[in-house]
Order: sequence, then C-alpha cells, then structure tokens
Amino acid sequence: MEDHLTLCDIGNTTYHFYDGKSDLKASVDSFDPASRKDDIYYISVNPKVDAILSKLANWHDLSNDIEWENYYETMGVDRIVACEAIDDGLIIDAGSAITVDLVILGHFEGGFIYPGLDAMQESYRNISSRLDYSLNFELDLDKMPKNSQDAISYGVFRTLYSEVMRHNKKIYLTGGNAKALSKIFPDAEVDELLLFKGMKKMMEKRC
Amino acid sequence: MEDHLTLCDIGNTTYHFYDGKSDLKASVDSFDPASRKDDIYYISVNPKVDAILSKLANWHDLSNDIEWENYYETMGVDRIVACEAIDDGLIIDAGSAITVDLVILGHFEGGFIYPGLDAMQESYRNISSRLDYSLNFELDLDKMPKNSQDAISYGVFRTLYSEVMRHNKKIYLTGGNAKALSKIFPDAEVDELLLFKGMKKMMEKRC
Repeated sequence: MEDHLTLCDIGNTTYHFYDGKSDLKASVDSFDPASRKDDIYYISVNPKVDAILSKLANWHDLSNDIEWENYYETMGVDRIVACEAIDDGLIIDAGSAITVDLVILGHFEGGFIYPGLDAMQESYRNISSRLDYSLNFELDLDKMPKNSQDAISYGVFRTLYSEVMRHNKKIYLTGGNAKALSKIFPDAEVDELLLFKGMKKMMEKRC
Repeated sequence: MEDHLTLCDIGNTTYHFYDGKSDLKASVDSFDPASRKDDIYYISVNPKVDAILSKLANWHDLSNDIEWENYYETMGVDRIVACEAIDDGLIIDAGSAITVDLVILGHFEGGFIYPGLDAMQESYRNISSRLDYSLNFELDLDKMPKNSQDAISYGVFRTLYSEVMRHNKKIYLTGGNAKALSKIFPDAEVDELLLFKGMKKMMEKRC
C-alpha cells in the first residue's frame, strides 16, 4: 500500500480523512466530495453520501472488498472495518450511534448498537425539560446516584458499562467521542484511527 | 383511609386514576382536570399540569406529604412514591422515562433514569433511517446479536438488564410498559398499581 493513499470514513455527520500522516474531518452538510480530484478509498454508512459518491470516479468504495460471509447483510460497513482492524477484543465506536462489537480470535461474534451521547441527551430533553442535563463524565460508577445530573449520566454510562465489562475483553475505543468515553472506560485503548487500520488491512488482503 | 378516595398519578403524558377498585388512564393533552368535581389526591411530575392543578381546590397535591430528607431535591415525586410502596428491592418504573430506584430496608439508596422505550426507538430513528426498527422483546439476552433489529433491541434491553441484575435484588415493575418489559425481566413482580400503594401509605402515615 502506498503511503500517500487517501482513506475516508463517512458517517452520519462527518467525513473523516486520513492520508497516512494526518487526519482531517469535514461536515457531511457542508463538504462537497466533487471538490477532491485525487483517488480516495472510502467506506460510508450514509445513504445520501453513497448516492453522490457512486457518480464520482475517483471515490472508490471499499465495501466491495468486504468478506460478507463473516458478517451480516445490514451491518454497517464502519463496524465491519473496525472488526477487521483487531484480532481479539471489544470495539466501542462512539459517534452519532455507539456500536459495540465483539471479535474473538479474528472472528466477529456479534455486536449491538446504543444511541450516541448527543442522541441520549436529546432523548432525555425531549421527555421532559426536567431531564435536560449535561452528562457528568466524572460520575462515580459504583454509587447509585442521588442527584438528577448523575441519575441521567448513570442511565447513559453505567448501563453501557455494566454490559461492556461483563465480556471481560480488551476494549478498543474509537469514534468522535472516544476520548470523552475513555473517562468511563479508563482501561480502554483509545485509537481514533482504528477504522483506517481496518481499511488498510482489507486493501492489503486484496493485493 | 376511605375506600372510595380517588388517587391520581400524573406523568409526562398520562393521568392515571385509581379509586380503590379500578384504574383509568387519560391523556395529558386531552383531559380537562376542571371536569372532575370530587376530591382527588394526586402526584405530578408534569410542570404544565402542576400549574393548572394548583388553581383547583379539589385537587390535593400529595407531594406536600413527602419526607424530603430521605430523598433529593429534584427527584421526581413518582419515584419517591414508588419507593414508599416497598420495603426492599429495585423498582423499574417504565413510562416516558424508565426510572430505576433502589430501596434497602425501607431506605432509598439511589437510582437512575433511562429513556423510555418510545424515546429510545425515536433516538435510533433520528440518528439514521437505517436504525429504524421495532424492538424485539423475544431477544436472546445471552447472545451478542448478528442482525440489525436485535443489535438495537440488545442496545436498549441488555444494557439496562446487565445493570439491573448486578444489584441482585427483588425487582418490581410498574408504569405503562411494565407488562412489555416483563418479557425482559421474567422474574420481576409486575404491579401497575405500585405508585397508588405508595400514595396510600404516605396518606396513612400522615393520619
């Protein structure tokens, strides 16, 4: 694989580029993919962006390289590429949604989808103005809360934490909220470039 | 306590009446509390309804009877009343929000708030049309999912389940989604009248 190949991971809200040296983010709402004239190897979970990119000859969809028999039909390609990046462990990809995927000895063993941190906060806010709190990342996970902010933060974090820790696996944290979530999962390995590693691995397999 | 006393539990979306014999629900949007001329003893977590009821002399706010030193200032009165109803256990009140409260030997020991089932589904739908699924209540909680509907259902149910079961307590299920959630918590005691029991106990204490 050439060092200056440009990779791009496209989510529901963000284009995330990586050229082997540095990474760069652009908003799905404002970035025009036709403005890039170089070859870009991408994955996308965004149906609107998919439709645009399919008409641009220099944007190459890596989902064509996926060995689908190891995954399931409607699984997000971002999750698949993350699984390709590791040999064993639990991947938490915290973006608009939080996906949690289990890989054992190189095999995808299932996973689940939790709403992203912004989505969770919005969901409390929509239920009642009395539940409109920012999340407390310094929350004590070992104490049932006795105040509103912690009651909501615990509802978001402790439920996810209890399920994740149950698997007793090495944890990889990636996605836009990886750093923030590392306060909740202090032993996790934060790797914001994890998906690019998976993309690179998939491309090398092909060669 | 007279048998024909009417109690009412008012949430974000519903008036829930109980007269000692049968219970009845009415929508917050369409029910006019001024249409009731009898004495009604109520609790409410709904700020809009609070404002209306404070002007009606036959509606009596039971939150005045709460012994606040056992709880915290911004705690929902519905949660407090539920805690008053039991001596020991974990209460899951599944409505617009899902509140989970721990009572040990008659003492409130903290609790948390999780979005309600409708709110969770809406939250996935808002993230992406690709995450718009109904919840699978028959989900196998012991298997990491390999399809989209289960990946979302597991995200909603298994996270909550893992945290709840960790406490190793008798579980009481109440609220509009109590019956539905009893498929996830098969050993829980479903009691849709739990809050009325708490209200009754509080009124008896006063006498």
